[in-house]
Amino acid sequence: MVRKGKNVAAGTPQEELDARTIAMIDRLAGQMRESIEQGELPAMRLPVRSLGNVTYDKDKGYFELGRAEKIRTLSVNTARIFAQTLRLMATARTMIAQNDFATKREAYYVSKNWGDARFDEQAESDAVMDDIEALAAAQGLSREQLRFYPESHGGSVAGELTVLDRNPQTGEAIEIDCRGFGNGAYGIPRSVEHLQFRTRAKFVLAIETGGMFQRLNSHRFWEETKCILVEMGGVPTRATRRFIRRLSDTMDLPVWCFTDCDPYGFANIYRTLKVGSGNAAHINRFFCVPRARYLGVTPQDIIDFGLKDATHPLGRADIKRARDALKNDPFFAAHPQWISAIEQLLEMGVRAEQQALAKWGLNYVIEEYLPRKLANPTGFLP
Amino acid sequence: MVRKGKNVAAGTPQEELDARTIAMIDRLAGQMRESIEQGELPAMRLPVRSLGNVTYDKDKGYFELGRAEKIRTLSVNTARIFAQTLRLMATARTMIAQNDFATKREAYYVSKNWGDARFDEQAESDAVMDDIEALAAAQGLSREQLRFYPESHGGSVAGELTVLDRNPQTGEAIEIDCRGFGNGAYGIPRSVEHLQFRTRAKFVLAIETGGMFQRLNSHRFWEETKCILVEMGGVPTRATRRFIRRLSDTMDLPVWCFTDCDPYGFANIYRTLKVGSGNAAHINRFFCVPRARYLGVTPQDIIDFGLKDATHPLGRADIKRARDALKNDPFFAAHPQWISAIEQLLEMGVRAEQQALAKWGLNYVIEEYLPRKLANPTGFLP
Repeated sequence: MVRKGKNVAAGTPQEELDARTIAMIDRLAGQMRESIEQGELPAMRLPVRSLGNVTYDKDKGYFELGRAEKIRTLSVNTARIFAQTLRLMATARTMIAQNDFATKREAYYVSKNWGDARFDEQAESDAVMDDIEALAAAQGLSREQLRFYPESHGGSVAGELTVLDRNPQTGEAIEIDCRGFGNGAYGIPRSVEHLQFRTRAKFVLAIETGGMFQRLNSHRFWEETKCILVEMGGVPTRATRRFIRRLSDTMDLPVWCFTDCDPYGFANIYRTLKVGSGNAAHINRFFCVPRARYLGVTPQDIIDFGLKDATHPLGRADIKRARDALKNDPFFAAHPQWISAIEQLLEMGVRAEQQALAKWGLNYVIEEYLPRKLANPTGFLP
Repeated sequence: MVRKGKNVAAGTPQEELDARTIAMIDRLAGQMRESIEQGELPAMRLPVRSLGNVTYDKDKGYFELGRAEKIRTLSVNTARIFAQTLRLMATARTMIAQNDFATKREAYYVSKNWGDARFDEQAESDAVMDDIEALAAAQGLSREQLRFYPESHGGSVAGELTVLDRNPQTGEAIEIDCRGFGNGAYGIPRSVEHLQFRTRAKFVLAIETGGMFQRLNSHRFWEETKCILVEMGGVPTRATRRFIRRLSDTMDLPVWCFTDCDPYGFANIYRTLKVGSGNAAHINRFFCVPRARYLGVTPQDIIDFGLKDATHPLGRADIKRARDALKNDPFFAAHPQWISAIEQLLEMGVRAEQQALAKWGLNYVIEEYLPRKLANPTGFLP
């Protein structure tokens, strides 16, 4: 009942990426084979994926992996992980050839038939996958390109956008008009590398909560403002970040981020969207959104829009997160405007959700807040 | 910038529901007013929403609220909650008239302008909303009909289905072809009451995990089997449950549920989908899916499909949940086949995820497992 699936049409960017990925796997396997044939112990050079090997350069715009490497040489102790690494790479190669994919969880289960090389825990297969991903990243290729997909949901999209996808089996072109879903929305797939876009939008609005997304979508906020609404649903998933990044790059669009006014909204949601995360530095270059700017809600908005009596006191976790951001986060350290904003928040001692604007009426956000903010994008936090 | 939004077209089921909802609110308000004019203290009769007031009748097919009532009479102690209840009902009435809605969180914030009647915590507004919902439920109306929407996501849909929605602003008809999303999917909106359907599908397949949904969708499993895939993403949300229920009712479709083989998959995901939840008994009649049957993964499947070495030992929480289901859950108590299955699971001492089928190859689930199961729907657990 499974159809093997025609691979994507010849000459597409996807086909070129697939060819590069297979070439990378073949090159690595070839090196091993050569070592063995020359009577040497085969070895792999892997980037060190720890926080100590991460740098942030404001101009580059994302957390980046440093040059530290670890060398994994075949020995009695490493034989198992060596075999696992090779088998996982072979699995990736087969999946590319057959135009298939595996979630991280499935990849773990696939190993159950590998005899002694089987993974006992998913943590093991995830770690090996991260190593392979780091190798691929050095070649400009992401894990999705190796056909290992995340388990988690993408976000939702509505507005002035047509997504150009393909029938995964026949390769036939598919057009998805994101204006045409009524109160519903387009769910971002787990891999977005092959998607192309057509749009007349002027910006992307990336929204923290589902409730706010639904409000803006139901009132077709995107129609008059000519924008694309993306629901992040908390910290955006890899697929959502990559979708926004590719949209921003290929369609030359700025991205305005609209979250709650709290340290989680700043340091977890916005910062991850914009520059990536510290413990996945080997992939941030694909997943960061350099053109993201923070629209709000800002601490100053709490004052300017009279939200004080709709705030909540900062909790202990909020305060810790804010202090951590000031002390340890190279992104915030590089932006004095963010330092001021976080200090202001700590001084005020309160946080405000984006829904707090409902205090002035359910649609105050559409009638007042967003128009006033959008009139002055240069005022957005960097 | 907000357009008030034309209400739905005259004579639609939605308009009739709206009229009934407004009539209910007006009747209640009228009774209060009458009491006051006659010099009596106004009172509200509210169903008791506690587990003690819940019954399960196999033929009805859902957890149901009993007849116990509480009477809330206006007094010095109840003045605030009395005012809050009336204001929240007035908010619902306005939203229906303006074709708008509020998430539960927004409804809480709206109260910040009510002076002394403001809610201090969302828990307060949620409790009052539950009371109003229970009142409405007695009239066959749900909370969504009062225009209070849940914050959480709906599920995703792909396959042999066209959803008929309307442009929320103009009322214009919109057709959403769920075969046309490539690797993406249709995101279920937060309120589905107004949707209509067109389909040639033979069944609905409700799937626990996003990864499995993506696999079946990417391989267009729905095409040859003529089905509709719904991703539940764990315990299905209200919107997802109601969507499946309406689909099953209006299109006369059976619903096959495909989850992990563990007590969470049985007792939390499947049981909630089929009969609802114990602590929201006043609404289960709208949200249950009586035609749901459990396709798998069953404990017997672990044996029949050779999954033993891809299982995990039952954890303490699993065992507790399984024992609770056997001891305290009227749904399982009413079905001897379920009692046997749960006892078998406890005896085997292991659980299996739906992804465990990947042990036999990534697409074993499509090539072997599902065809064998689907050939014998009468073997599904009730």
